[in-house]
Amino acid sequence: MKYSRASAPAKVILFGEHFVVNGSRAIATALDLPTVATAIEKASWPLEIESTSLGLRCVTGPELTCSSRELEPLLSIIRALRSRDYDVPPARLTVESDIPPSAGLGSSASASAAAAAALTALAGQDIDPEELFEVTMEGERVAHGNPSGVDPATVVYGGTIVFRRGQGVLERLQGGLSVPLVVADSGLRRSTAAPVLNVLKFLDRVGPLRVSLLGLVEQLIDLAWSAIRGNQLEDIGALMNINHGLLSAIGVSTPELEELVYAARRAGALGAKLTGAGWGGSIIAITRPGEAERVAAALTSRSSWVRVLDGGAPGTRVIKVNP
Amino acid sequence: MKYSRASAPAKVILFGEHFVVNGSRAIATALDLPTVATAIEKASWPLEIESTSLGLRCVTGPELTCSSRELEPLLSIIRALRSRDYDVPPARLTVESDIPPSAGLGSSASASAAAAAALTALAGQDIDPEELFEVTMEGERVAHGNPSGVDPATVVYGGTIVFRRGQGVLERLQGGLSVPLVVADSGLRRSTAAPVLNVLKFLDRVGPLRVSLLGLVEQLIDLAWSAIRGNQLEDIGALMNINHGLLSAIGVSTPELEELVYAARRAGALGAKLTGAGWGGSIIAITRPGEAERVAAALTSRSSWVRVLDGGAPGTRVIKVNP
Repeated sequence: MKYSRASAPAKVILFGEHFVVNGSRAIATALDLPTVATAIEKASWPLEIESTSLGLRCVTGPELTCSSRELEPLLSIIRALRSRDYDVPPARLTVESDIPPSAGLGSSASASAAAAAALTALAGQDIDPEELFEVTMEGERVAHGNPSGVDPATVVYGGTIVFRRGQGVLERLQGGLSVPLVVADSGLRRSTAAPVLNVLKFLDRVGPLRVSLLGLVEQLIDLAWSAIRGNQLEDIGALMNINHGLLSAIGVSTPELEELVYAARRAGALGAKLTGAGWGGSIIAITRPGEAERVAAALTSRSSWVRVLDGGAPGTRVIKVNP
Repeated sequence: MKYSRASAPAKVILFGEHFVVNGSRAIATALDLPTVATAIEKASWPLEIESTSLGLRCVTGPELTCSSRELEPLLSIIRALRSRDYDVPPARLTVESDIPPSAGLGSSASASAAAAAALTALAGQDIDPEELFEVTMEGERVAHGNPSGVDPATVVYGGTIVFRRGQGVLERLQGGLSVPLVVADSGLRRSTAAPVLNVLKFLDRVGPLRVSLLGLVEQLIDLAWSAIRGNQLEDIGALMNINHGLLSAIGVSTPELEELVYAARRAGALGAKLTGAGWGGSIIAITRPGEAERVAAALTSRSSWVRVLDGGAPGTRVIKVNP
């Protein structure tokens, strides 16, 4: 039986989330927490799509419609592949992932990229990273509305990247930091407290302050990229703490995220911050070499999902094609 | 028996604490929470000084020495008065205050200003606000090492002020906001966690970022002063939230302060932030008219000292001189 398998990493934004939507750069790294997509050729329609992590399944004819909205991004990447003249034969597509959804870890981009890579490989076609990025971006538009593109860029190219919306990957390091990251999910899914929205609406009104904040973030990105390249772990940590404060300033932190951030710092992390869009989702922490497990242990009483993960994982790749 | 009594308000910094030490402006308001100093003339030495709030007492001859360091600021204002040719006769000086010490509420400046006003009044002398500020500043140098001067300026002049170190009061509004402030003390007294110091040390090294942060705070002060003058409570609140995030960015918040800040916001405060030097001390929150008590109630389970207080209180003044 003809089948193919592809994998895509998760991602975390190390610096610049939220501001990246408004034009500043962001630094992100691919996490060694793969999504695996398997595509098995079928003799005829319907196409079957299953996400084991979401516990959802969709069976569709060539019109590509699905009852569950959560699987819509996967249909949209199939449409995007077709519109780019890739052949997508009827298949059974299974997406397996341990990335918690809506936690700021790029689960949807990772699923889309892995799926697109598996489907094109099944049809015996090569897809280059630029095109895979564009196709994955189509899935992200369905999943997130107005994505900056940093998620698909990170999961497609892998490594550690500096990204700017509209310009794509500006710089890229093969690999990641010299220490693994501690990642903890708050379990909170975008609660929208009124004061939070208040600040964001207000920032829209006070143009000069917003511009200054973006300028500050650009400086932060310069310093952070230099610290990452120089493997200056203490500086990276201190800059992460500053970045977290700026995210608090624009109102996207929550008490639950603060609790995790401070628990990590108190356990000896060099720096800790929320990662992703905020209002919930995850935090990341950086430690001295050998101390990640201790910091992770300090977070387990406050989070049901804590991992110690290497950054700078490889990008999306085809693992196997048979025959 | 000849005696005099003077009162001085407490203070809170509404915007710009910490950054004010480094040259940006701060906005502070005098709180209706007076320190009362009573000076009773004695026929002869020793001079007796008592702080009822600190529970400390000192008896000293003309050499002005004391065993308790906490009363040292009061001795130093006596020295400052003498060096300015004020006559300080032997007296019994009692300072009574409900301002919690080391909570960012200006307890030491308030005590010094009230004491200096009472002592000069006892000797039948007038002291103008400029000189009272200078004398109070001497007490602050002993209490805080390297004070910006915003505390003595606020408690001496009263009202709501814009202050810059080295330049003094730049602008002043008689009175305060149209709503009272909610003030809650974390009970925490300057614990110095390693990551906090790390960030500060790091900020010293990254000059450009520090400069940008100060620039951002200056913009914030402009917007905040305009919002205060226009009585735009929602804007004041939103700017307080932004200011809190910047204080988090430089590493002077704590989990306990975050808990209070978020509890206030969740209870409906328009804005909430730490106030003062951070690393403990107090938070302030602003609410819609009539909602302060409700927000205060939400904080009582997390703080043993919560008050609803009017800002813009009068400055230091002599209440009574007898005869």
